Amino acid sequence: MFGVKLLEERIRAEGKVRENGSVLKVDSFLNHQMDMELYDAMGAEFYRLFGGEGVTKLLTIEASGIGIACVAGLHFHVPVVFAKKGKTKNIDGDIYTALVHSFTHGQLYEIMVAREFIQPGDRVLLIDDFLAKGAALEGLIHIVEQAGATVVGAGVCVEKAFQPGGDALRQKGYRIEALARIKSMSDEDGVEFC
Amino acid sequence: MFGVKLLEERIRAEGKVRENGSVLKVDSFLNHQMDMELYDAMGAEFYRLFGGEGVTKLLTIEASGIGIACVAGLHFHVPVVFAKKGKTKNIDGDIYTALVHSFTHGQLYEIMVAREFIQPGDRVLLIDDFLAKGAALEGLIHIVEQAGATVVGAGVCVEKAFQPGGDALRQKGYRIEALARIKSMSDEDGVEFC
Repeated sequence: MFGVKLLEERIRAEGKVRENGSVLKVDSFLNHQMDMELYDAMGAEFYRLFGGEGVTKLLTIEASGIGIACVAGLHFHVPVVFAKKGKTKNIDGDIYTALVHSFTHGQLYEIMVAREFIQPGDRVLLIDDFLAKGAALEGLIHIVEQAGATVVGAGVCVEKAFQPGGDALRQKGYRIEALARIKSMSDEDGVEFC
Repeated sequence: MFGVKLLEERIRAEGKVRENGSVLKVDSFLNHQMDMELYDAMGAEFYRLFGGEGVTKLLTIEASGIGIACVAGLHFHVPVVFAKKGKTKNIDGDIYTALVHSFTHGQLYEIMVAREFIQPGDRVLLIDDFLAKGAALEGLIHIVEQAGATVVGAGVCVEKAFQPGGDALRQKGYRIEALARIKSMSDEDGVEFC
């Protein structure tokens, strides 16, 4: 199994649980400093999992999803699109939007994708670094479905499986694959995997 | 020459000049939808340019620099760090900060990097998608120099060479390499390269 060998080991070795078990810091290798050998292995694993699904596009959300989505995109040989947060001058024309509740930052924000980059025939794989309550993935799914495209599934690096997001999405029929699934975590005992 | 063959051609074919020559939209292949074959070629070119410089780390800034920095990082086989904008709960401990003026968004924002990820012995290559007035690169340089590390130079995809940022940095002694250098651009005549 990929996750056990690489990402789980790395989380065990370098992950730090903070704020009474609510925050997992993995910023030495995943979402501030990024280890490219680990990233390449994760991209290859997403391709192993979803490479047979006829994926035409990867979709992620700024900022910390962009790196893993790009490295995965090199394995899939398809374009990578990232949903932008908030307003920007550089998008004109029609856009798809969705509202996302950030629990980390305690605020609601808008994400958007230019309509031209998701077409009805697209088979879209969602990629992100973390899955907890599922708000970001739900926003991305809402955008893909507005476009009349197909959500092939989602590949995430770390799932906080003790939070309801992943299973709620699975119950709706989406294929969600996580490379490391955390069963529980605490400041004292660290991380336990599923 | 790389730039002429790939990125310049792509800008000629798909770039759109907007707002009286002040904005170049390249979001079909560079900074909203990202073309992974182009990205891989750009990453390889940065490695050809700087691969002999003993680079130990790549440093970029969220959000649109992360993709090209990661793909370049696969060529350099070194970790990639991205400077974060604004506050986040997930960083604790000591950080380096710098102020950056965003002309695109008309605001001043703070960027930060955790101190542990840039050490005095590091030889840091800066990577970004755009160089215009040079504010983002100046902020990144300020962070690297606070750490007592060495700035090897900067690799950027597109330089708006009619703006002063690139040459001001070169005059200070930094090696700045751009894969496409725009001499002038206008809504009517499009883009002319150096």
